[in-house]
Amino acid sequence: MDAMTSLTPDLGIKTLHEGYANGASPARMIDAVYARIEEVGDPGIFITLRDKADVVAEAAALPAFDPVAYPLWGIPFASKDNIDVAGLPTTAACPAFAYDATEDAFVIARLRAAGALVIGKTNLDQFATGLVGVRSPYDIPRNAIDPDIVPGGSSSGSAVAVAQGIVTFALGTDTAGSGRVPAALNNIVGIKPTLGLLSASGMVPACRTLDTISIFATGIADGWQALTVASGHDPADSYSRPLPAPALDMPPVPVIGVPDAASREFFGDTVQEAAFAAALDRLAALGAQIVEVDLAPFYAVAEMLYSGAWVAERMAAIEELMRTNPDAVHPVTRQIVGAADDLSAADAFRGIYRLMDLKRATEPTLNRIDMMSVPTIPTFYSRADLDADPIGPNSRLGTYTNFVNLLDMCGLAVPTAPRSDGRPGSVTLLAPAGKDGLLASWAAAIETDAAISPGAGLSRPAPLVTDATSPGPEEMLVAAVGAHMSGLPLNHELTDLGARCLGPARTEAAYRLFRLPGGPVPKPGLLRDPDGTPDGGTEIEVELWALDRAAMGRFMAGIPSPLSIGTIGLADGRSCKGFLVEAAAVQGAEDISAHGGWRGFLAAQQATAPA
Amino acid sequence: MDAMTSLTPDLGIKTLHEGYANGASPARMIDAVYARIEEVGDPGIFITLRDKADVVAEAAALPAFDPVAYPLWGIPFASKDNIDVAGLPTTAACPAFAYDATEDAFVIARLRAAGALVIGKTNLDQFATGLVGVRSPYDIPRNAIDPDIVPGGSSSGSAVAVAQGIVTFALGTDTAGSGRVPAALNNIVGIKPTLGLLSASGMVPACRTLDTISIFATGIADGWQALTVASGHDPADSYSRPLPAPALDMPPVPVIGVPDAASREFFGDTVQEAAFAAALDRLAALGAQIVEVDLAPFYAVAEMLYSGAWVAERMAAIEELMRTNPDAVHPVTRQIVGAADDLSAADAFRGIYRLMDLKRATEPTLNRIDMMSVPTIPTFYSRADLDADPIGPNSRLGTYTNFVNLLDMCGLAVPTAPRSDGRPGSVTLLAPAGKDGLLASWAAAIETDAAISPGAGLSRPAPLVTDATSPGPEEMLVAAVGAHMSGLPLNHELTDLGARCLGPARTEAAYRLFRLPGGPVPKPGLLRDPDGTPDGGTEIEVELWALDRAAMGRFMAGIPSPLSIGTIGLADGRSCKGFLVEAAAVQGAEDISAHGGWRGFLAAQQATAPA
Repeated sequence: MDAMTSLTPDLGIKTLHEGYANGASPARMIDAVYARIEEVGDPGIFITLRDKADVVAEAAALPAFDPVAYPLWGIPFASKDNIDVAGLPTTAACPAFAYDATEDAFVIARLRAAGALVIGKTNLDQFATGLVGVRSPYDIPRNAIDPDIVPGGSSSGSAVAVAQGIVTFALGTDTAGSGRVPAALNNIVGIKPTLGLLSASGMVPACRTLDTISIFATGIADGWQALTVASGHDPADSYSRPLPAPALDMPPVPVIGVPDAASREFFGDTVQEAAFAAALDRLAALGAQIVEVDLAPFYAVAEMLYSGAWVAERMAAIEELMRTNPDAVHPVTRQIVGAADDLSAADAFRGIYRLMDLKRATEPTLNRIDMMSVPTIPTFYSRADLDADPIGPNSRLGTYTNFVNLLDMCGLAVPTAPRSDGRPGSVTLLAPAGKDGLLASWAAAIETDAAISPGAGLSRPAPLVTDATSPGPEEMLVAAVGAHMSGLPLNHELTDLGARCLGPARTEAAYRLFRLPGGPVPKPGLLRDPDGTPDGGTEIEVELWALDRAAMGRFMAGIPSPLSIGTIGLADGRSCKGFLVEAAAVQGAEDISAHGGWRGFLAAQQATAPA
Repeated sequence: MDAMTSLTPDLGIKTLHEGYANGASPARMIDAVYARIEEVGDPGIFITLRDKADVVAEAAALPAFDPVAYPLWGIPFASKDNIDVAGLPTTAACPAFAYDATEDAFVIARLRAAGALVIGKTNLDQFATGLVGVRSPYDIPRNAIDPDIVPGGSSSGSAVAVAQGIVTFALGTDTAGSGRVPAALNNIVGIKPTLGLLSASGMVPACRTLDTISIFATGIADGWQALTVASGHDPADSYSRPLPAPALDMPPVPVIGVPDAASREFFGDTVQEAAFAAALDRLAALGAQIVEVDLAPFYAVAEMLYSGAWVAERMAAIEELMRTNPDAVHPVTRQIVGAADDLSAADAFRGIYRLMDLKRATEPTLNRIDMMSVPTIPTFYSRADLDADPIGPNSRLGTYTNFVNLLDMCGLAVPTAPRSDGRPGSVTLLAPAGKDGLLASWAAAIETDAAISPGAGLSRPAPLVTDATSPGPEEMLVAAVGAHMSGLPLNHELTDLGARCLGPARTEAAYRLFRLPGGPVPKPGLLRDPDGTPDGGTEIEVELWALDRAAMGRFMAGIPSPLSIGTIGLADGRSCKGFLVEAAAVQGAEDISAHGGWRGFLAAQQATAPA
């Protein structure tokens, strides 16, 4: 492994961009990529590999290096071959189905517009039906860690390309777990975004109501960067949703639901069972509150994906081929999709009703946790296992993935410490739609803690930079001045609304702090010094909180006269919203500015209080 | 008609409650109801009529009259016979399907808990499949206006019971228009709530994804009262949504979309065409801004209801009966529902995809209007017309209703001035989900303007009392002081966020208004007089706006220093949030309090400006 590592270029965005900033050319990177392809020597990874010269020419035509304007400038990536890249065939791993794409898929276009360079189209379980990666008429990609093990699917080639250090990131798709299972099997990160966050325009559908493009990378930071570039509303895709841009979000003490004892299923793999228990211990050590939850309603949902109505979506996607040229379809795929012939439209609606009922049954669980943590896969299967039984092991690999898209949850598979036998460890974090940033923030903590070499012994990924002291795009920065600060009596008014503490700060030297008259409980008031000059006031300690904009109205409704929310200048030059007192209310009030802040005043009070 | 009117009791909630407050007993009301049933003499209205003695006993067991605690105390109502009432059979107009209900449906239970008295179960198009009211094995209810005309369906008996003055309100159900078409045909109000606002627990499904219980009444006020009582989240119904309580909402100038010339379809009924045009003239006269819209994508949606996949939902609801005892199903219903046999599960999903595409196609239209106004029905059909062709006239009656539930819109049918031939006029207001209060507020204006006797010449309904000067439960009262007031440059910051103007107000006599120094554009600042006494300031004119709480954060983000949002005391004793200025910023500012407000100051400025 070590020898291989030394030969593998570090394709992390940070590393590549440092190189480009220092004058390295993308052509040198492309040389390394194609050399690495040669070195890996796996004919199963790519269905279509672009000519190196074409990629070099495309790189040469990029505008000047500017990682702010082009956050993926010169970054090589691969796309699963069920997503259109202009000028290349889209096969979905079915030659009889193949067509020449004339336009980039919406997501591909966004990535390329940000400077990313597509290297080729990767192998998959045909029509993205499968979790094993062996249901393809092309050569089967070799698992990057252990060639006896299945590569995982359906996004097999994309996962292996990342795990082998061929590309920085790769696009997969995920309907039942195709963006997560191969990540676990190849020791990398797999991001399964909220449905509708990435447009599906230009993607061959598997189940249109459940499909999403997914992202593989060696680390969270690179995957997150690709996700933020790729996401965006696409009016041309009816399943694209007008979601807010994904934003990182790190709660101080996340409540993480984990399968209770009865819900844990490892099909006898005690090594995997122990590895998962160890991963949960690390989550607790990282500060999460762990609560055990019953996965029974989630498993009942999962059951519906292939045994219920949704297999008919796969039929809807390829019905013409199934009717006119069934032999062109992989026999296992044909068998699975063919089951739709027994399903009536009434059955489809009955399935939809049952899903609604089961969704309702999962709500009490989801309402009491921030996210879930499950094993990404329950165990490992060899290619020989699949030869012996092409269906059973595939189904079992989906134990912890099949319910996710049906329940409109987002997911993120992240490597954990290796199992005791050296095989890769992986957990998947899951949360309701729209919580992609929450998952990425916590997965980054897991990644840093695990400190593994991802994929086939690649370089440790650069950590995700969480700008935790800045509010997110949908948040407001609010300065708490008195009893709303952490540990003080009104702090719950912020935390009840989901506000995040960003830490202490000081106002610019232009304010005065008063103890307002009246009442047994002392109340503070912050006022810009009436002289209105920097010399007329002092710096006052405040505490910064990030509050969701949509919660601001509810917060304000609870703020009584004579307090108001105005703009406060901070000592570091920023300004934020914060508590001010009306000047009329400080007539006769005690000026406590000399204490430096409300905490200082309270401490002095306590020190002088009668025992 | 006049003689009949004189015999008909006024069953309006306001009238009955005035009577009860003055000592009248519900028993007297019940006597009148049963006498009216006799007088009408239509055996088709009720499938099950309760024994009068049972209703009297139930009324006698009510707690003491308290219209606040029991807003429907002593109010008689009827329920369509596809909704369970404990102790009565539920037939769905199919004797072979009937069962004895052991529990009240969720909605029935809520109405009874509020003091309402259920009189009986009403006839319907079997399994709520139809818009005509003649597809029932029971006697067909007579249209309350003209017995030659179909009563309308599927909620035929409920609509006729209200129109004949037998009950104050009645429950229908609405999947394709069954809560609206009979309202138009019987000259009453039909409320088709947002899907999921009223629980469907205890209702026989037609199309579970599209069904809602609906409400008929002679006027908006009574219908709205029943709606607010009946609505509420029901965890046991997976299609019940956790929506906010419905709230009235009257925009000053609503933008109302109406069918353009090409989209108007009256099947040759020029009288109906003229009546609709006249109704739109009244809308414009009431202050609405009318914009013509293309209904083509809406009609494409409508087409899918019976010609597409959704007929399979009807099959799913009654498949056992259709397989085991098809002769028990009305022949027309059997023919319609039987079409589902040709539809595969893949067809169902293809239908769902197409609906998503068409929904997307309607979004540009819906985004530029507040609501739509369409004819409730395109024309009238006689019972003879239906004998000749049981399907065609039924389909045509759904022209303006069939797309509504598929597009997740709410609707409200309200009588307008009679047509030139004396037949009832009706328009339906339509808006996206959750806008029930907007529809009711505008329908109330239409109702007051039309000033008709509803139903078969019943008493004019009491007007809806809209407390338009108060914010709704999810709104905040915000006082604009300067450029945010109507017609001034920053007003759009309020209107862009959907704020509603509640009109002018004055602060308590404790404030001073300043013109802030600096800048070519004058800026005001409101400050509580530093003396802090009522004598130290004056009343200042402000303008009150109701702003959605969730929009408050976005609004605040745009408010620059030295302005803040604090609490302002009003002259009428209320307080509200509003613009204040920091005291430090009025050093050297001109005190313009004598102008009484910012508008007064601007007017004086203009008067003295050089020409």
